[in-house]
Amino acid sequence: MRIAKVIGTTISTIKDEKLVGRKLLILRPADEKGKVYGKPYVAVDTLDAGIGDLVLTAHGSGGRQTDITQNSPVDAVIMAVIDHTVADGQVAYQKG
Amino acid sequence: MRIAKVIGTTISTIKDEKLVGRKLLILRPADEKGKVYGKPYVAVDTLDAGIGDLVLTAHGSGGRQTDITQNSPVDAVIMAVIDHTVADGQVAYQKG
Amino acid sequence: MRIAKVIGTTISTIKDEKLVGRKLLILRPADEKGKVYGKPYVAVDTLDAGIGDLVLTAHGSGGRQTDITQNSPVDAVIMAVIDHTVADGQVAYQKG
Amino acid sequence: MRIAKVIGTTISTIKDEKLVGRKLLILRPADEKGKVYGKPYVAVDTLDAGIGDLVLTAHGSGGRQTDITQNSPVDAVIMAVIDHTVADGQVAYQKG
Amino acid sequence: MRIAKVIGTTISTIKDEKLVGRKLLILRPADEKGKVYGKPYVAVDTLDAGIGDLVLTAHGSGGRQTDITQNSPVDAVIMAVIDHTVADGQVAYQKG
Repeated sequence: MRIAKVIGTTISTIKDEKLVGRKLLILRPADEKGKVYGKPYVAVDTLDAGIGDLVLTAHGSGGRQTDITQNSPVDAVIMAVIDHTVADGQVAYQKG
Repeated sequence: MRIAKVIGTTISTIKDEKLVGRKLLILRPADEKGKVYGKPYVAVDTLDAGIGDLVLTAHGSGGRQTDITQNSPVDAVIMAVIDHTVADGQVAYQKG
Repeated sequence: MRIAKVIGTTISTIKDEKLVGRKLLILRPADEKGKVYGKPYVAVDTLDAGIGDLVLTAHGSGGRQTDITQNSPVDAVIMAVIDHTVADGQVAYQKG
Repeated sequence: MRIAKVIGTTISTIKDEKLVGRKLLILRPADEKGKVYGKPYVAVDTLDAGIGDLVLTAHGSGGRQTDITQNSPVDAVIMAVIDHTVADGQVAYQKG
Repeated sequence: MRIAKVIGTTISTIKDEKLVGRKLLILRPADEKGKVYGKPYVAVDTLDAGIGDLVLTAHGSGGRQTDITQNSPVDAVIMAVIDHTVADGQVAYQKG
C-alpha cells in the first residue's frame, strides 16, 4: 500500500456507469511523516476521507476488494485513514 | 487511476482479433491542473473521449472491467472524462 | 498499453514447458513518434511482428488474454502492430 | 518480491472492515546488503516481523495469497523474514 | 518480462508455509547484453538457474502460472534461462 495525502477531488459527467455515485479523490504520495512527493493519482474513497487526511491506498486488483469497488474499472482505493505512524521508535505523524 | 490528457490515436491493421473496432488513444500523464509530464501510453476509449480531454485511466485488470474491454489483451481503459478538478480548495482544472 | 519498438529476440533452451514454441521478442519503450527510450523488456509475440516494428504491448494479466499466452507464466504480449500514429493533429509515425 | 526493511507501523481507526486486527507495517526498499533506499510503503504482516528486520514482500494479487490477506483490499504482504543473503559468493547480510 | 541476472540467494526460516522448499534468488535487472542496472529483486526459481545466469522473469499474477508457484504469496518467477540474445542484427549476449 502507498501512504498518500488527500489533496482534492475530480468531477466527471461522462464516466463508466459503475462509477456513478463514486467519490474519486486526488492524492499525492507521502512518506511516513506525511510529507508529500511525486505526481498525483486518483483513488476511490470508501471511508469518507477528508482533504488533508493521510491515508493508505491499495492498488491493482486490491483496489476492487471492497463492496463499493468490486467489478468496477478502477485500480486504487482508500482502505485506511491513518491516525498516526511510528517510525524509528517515535511518532512520525499524528492526525491533526 | 492516473490523470492523463488525450494527445492522439494509433491505427493498426495487424492486431489481436478482440481489438477489432476498438479505439486506442495515446495519452500523456497529467497533474491535477492538466499539465502533462512523462512518456505517452495507450488506453482503450469506451467513452468517446476527444483529443485534448483530461481523463482518468484505470490500469491492469481494472482496465478490463468494462463490457468493451473484458477478456481482451489490454491493460488500460479511459473510465472517466474530467469536467473539473479541485485541489487545495480551488478549481485547478476546468474543461474548456 | 505501452508503445514499443522490436529490437531483437531471446533464445532459451531451459524454460517453462508452456513457453515451448513461443517467440519472445526484446522491445524498447518508444514514444508516439517511435523514438525509443529506457531499458529493454521482453514480450510474447502472437502477431508475427518483425524487427523494427512499432507495436503495442499489454502487461500484467492483460498479457495472458490471448489463446497463445493464457495460463502461461508471462506478463507481456504484443497485441497490435502500429501502422501509424496521429498526435497533435498530424501523423507522428508512419510504418516504413 | 522486493527486499525491504521494517521501519515502523501505521495505526488507523477508520479502515475497511476486512483490515480489523491486521498489522500494517511501514517498510523501505533495501538492497541485498540490507541498505535502504527510496520511499516507504506499507505491507500486511503475517509473520510477526519486528522493527529492523529485513524481509521479502509480495505485491499485487500475490499479496493476497495468504489466509490472512485473501479477499482484502491490500496489495502487499510480508511473506518471509530474511536470515541472511548471499551475493557474489559471500554473505551480504546477516540478521543481527 | 524482465531480463535479469542471478546474483545471489536469500535464506529464511520464518516464511509463509507455501514457500517451504522454494528457492528464492536475488536478481538484478539487465539489458539485452546482460549488463546489469538498478536495484535487486527476488524471484522464485523453478528452473534450477545458477548464479551468473541471464534469465527472464514474469511478474505479478504471471509469476504464479507454474505448478510450483500457483496460489503462493509470490509475484515473480524465473520462467526462462537465456542461451543468447540477438539485437540490432547481431548476437548481443551469449551464455558462457
